[in-house]
Amino acid sequence: MTRTPDLYEADLHACLEDPVLGAIGFLNEVMDRHPDAISFAPGAPHPDFVQGLDPRALTDRFLTHLRTDRGLDPSRAERVLYEYGPAQGLINDLVTDALRTDQGIDAAPEDVVITVGAQEALLLTLRALHRNAGDLLAVADPCYPGVVGAARLLGIPVTDVREGTAGLDVDHLAARCAQARAEGRRVRACYVAPDFSNPGGARMPLAARHALLDLAQREDLFLVEDNAYGFTAAEDDTLPGLKALDTRRRVVHVGTFAKVGFPGARVGYAVADQRVGHSSGERSLAQALADLKTVVTVNTSPLSQAVVGGLLLEHGRSLRALARGKAERYRANLARLTDALERHLADGMPAGVSWHRPAGGFFVRVDLPVPADLALLEVSAAQYGVLWAPMRQFSLTDRGDRQIRLSCSYLEPDRIETGVRRLAAFLTKEAAG
Amino acid sequence: MTRTPDLYEADLHACLEDPVLGAIGFLNEVMDRHPDAISFAPGAPHPDFVQGLDPRALTDRFLTHLRTDRGLDPSRAERVLYEYGPAQGLINDLVTDALRTDQGIDAAPEDVVITVGAQEALLLTLRALHRNAGDLLAVADPCYPGVVGAARLLGIPVTDVREGTAGLDVDHLAARCAQARAEGRRVRACYVAPDFSNPGGARMPLAARHALLDLAQREDLFLVEDNAYGFTAAEDDTLPGLKALDTRRRVVHVGTFAKVGFPGARVGYAVADQRVGHSSGERSLAQALADLKTVVTVNTSPLSQAVVGGLLLEHGRSLRALARGKAERYRANLARLTDALERHLADGMPAGVSWHRPAGGFFVRVDLPVPADLALLEVSAAQYGVLWAPMRQFSLTDRGDRQIRLSCSYLEPDRIETGVRRLAAFLTKEAAG
Repeated sequence: MTRTPDLYEADLHACLEDPVLGAIGFLNEVMDRHPDAISFAPGAPHPDFVQGLDPRALTDRFLTHLRTDRGLDPSRAERVLYEYGPAQGLINDLVTDALRTDQGIDAAPEDVVITVGAQEALLLTLRALHRNAGDLLAVADPCYPGVVGAARLLGIPVTDVREGTAGLDVDHLAARCAQARAEGRRVRACYVAPDFSNPGGARMPLAARHALLDLAQREDLFLVEDNAYGFTAAEDDTLPGLKALDTRRRVVHVGTFAKVGFPGARVGYAVADQRVGHSSGERSLAQALADLKTVVTVNTSPLSQAVVGGLLLEHGRSLRALARGKAERYRANLARLTDALERHLADGMPAGVSWHRPAGGFFVRVDLPVPADLALLEVSAAQYGVLWAPMRQFSLTDRGDRQIRLSCSYLEPDRIETGVRRLAAFLTKEAAG
Repeated sequence: MTRTPDLYEADLHACLEDPVLGAIGFLNEVMDRHPDAISFAPGAPHPDFVQGLDPRALTDRFLTHLRTDRGLDPSRAERVLYEYGPAQGLINDLVTDALRTDQGIDAAPEDVVITVGAQEALLLTLRALHRNAGDLLAVADPCYPGVVGAARLLGIPVTDVREGTAGLDVDHLAARCAQARAEGRRVRACYVAPDFSNPGGARMPLAARHALLDLAQREDLFLVEDNAYGFTAAEDDTLPGLKALDTRRRVVHVGTFAKVGFPGARVGYAVADQRVGHSSGERSLAQALADLKTVVTVNTSPLSQAVVGGLLLEHGRSLRALARGKAERYRANLARLTDALERHLADGMPAGVSWHRPAGGFFVRVDLPVPADLALLEVSAAQYGVLWAPMRQFSLTDRGDRQIRLSCSYLEPDRIETGVRRLAAFLTKEAAG
């Protein structure tokens, strides 16, 4: 029986037609069609890392904390987990302790809002900072699709700023600000992941970080720093994040416990210590974000917060040690990936193919001399049994048209080896210039 | 040390200035200032109802289900809980079974998206259905502030439709549609809670439900049905919900497990079985909502879904029995509240004071002959030790200016009795016409 649809896609909000919203579904669909292909596409944390997790023990640890440190009687402590909770969060003090120890970020609990993953933190931050129709969001391009998607959902216009392997091009951002001003608009905020960005794998040098902070001050714009992959840096090779360097409260710092802790808990946070003046006083920007949160998700599941709170307590309010072990594994995977690429292509590097060797993160960007489109991905999957993510889907421009993203986070070492062998064959025969 | 704020409220998104966003915080603040007052303000579920809950046992029940019914090996089943999951949800089949058994709603799992509470389901639904600048959201007025707040956050213009004790005024909605058409706009969707709405406590008669569905079909608009309080009806006094009566797929049904199940899990859902046509085929509106969800919260915590899934499995995929016990208690509280009002005011009903006796829900609407403003609330709290919610904060018009909302869900019977005694004194002395 054929029946007429009740609606057409064009009857729904325009953001649903934006490819960024379909990007994840599309990759899953290709993976489903090629179950035997080795996939460098997904950027998910390694499955081994959730195996030692025990939500029960972690919840118990948090309940003990509520009783002993916060003085709640046992039944009141349990009710904290089972009932609604404050929109701003339950574990803000544990998170600020960890931020101080692990990242040198000095924030008070009221400067933090606990969110359903970093994604909700991004959505709330973009919403709060966008006041006028002429307020632009600048994004490092290529960009994590969740940021552009959230902006589209909110109706916020987006402008791209080049990001190379050395991170965001600060001069290009300055040019974007000048251009916006000439058009009677302004760049209100700029999204950037200075440490091993997704998808580009880029890291900003220290000088560029300072230059970016200076520009933000000069242009009166806010930086939205995403720090999902910062933990993967080697201990003797870390750079301070933007928020740690932020003496003028220009940075809203967004983080997640999904990569270091527990993806299934869906707990993230925003650090927004900006003071917001109003008629009867002042509050933190995080408190305004919490107000917005009441109409998005009301509050983050106390059950989930308890698990993450337990994890923080279990590790002395610092996830550095936990992060260190995982970071070593990810860096080993990354080295294996780039080593294997060099090894397998040693006898004849395909013309026009190149990649960089990031010092951390999950991602390697590969430049091709040919368009890395869906047709090419289909060839790679069907004929060579290897999958990757076209950079095109992460870019607002044509910059990503001849690039692919390889992710090494989810694969076992032997699969990386085999996958790269297939990839080398594919690159040599199909992607050479 | 005085320092200049970094920002002013007027620099942030305008929705933050809307009183609906501050409504919850404001009531909490008044309650904090008057800890000894008896509060009829909060609409939270009764704390007793979470006491029998055992998240561990419920999670185990869900893990057993993943192993035995879905054939996952034990380590794969655990990973389902710990890792990211599908945006559309993990427990859709359990939810559709319960909807069929408990509410006569016939939906397929792909017609459902599992959300972070009903609030996220509302946000996603409003976003998807709003295409053009001239698309209005009509809301029953007075209205649950989460709906108006979500519309403000999304920049969706809102129009009010009168709601009396017999529910939404369908003729007024028809007039709003005509008015919008005359202005070159259209009412795209209408939010309504036909069963014991929050805050009004109204219930729509069956004939009005049919009339509303007919109007929706005629005007090509969608009804967003919120069913949070439907479960509180007596078994011999239930009416079919809009979605159960919806033969033309005009209704998106939004629900929550917070009231019957587990507030702390933060799990809700939308039933959106509308077929959406696009270039290469068709999908359900729920699948489009899941796409939107990828840029709001990515996915609902699998840990939370496991707890709710366990609850559904534990009760034979039906929450009717669970709801019945709670409903009896809430109805008893409601009767106690209205009985006590009558008893305590028997010797001299204050002129111009009246209320209705709802057959279910958490809320009683009281009409006053004087403005029910913050000054009056302060008098009530400080001098009489009793708190209530001004209806003003739930209304887009001045309709609520002389009304208050009393909630009976959170209080013990003896507190209701004492609270009403105080309320009667307050009404007699301060609120008489």
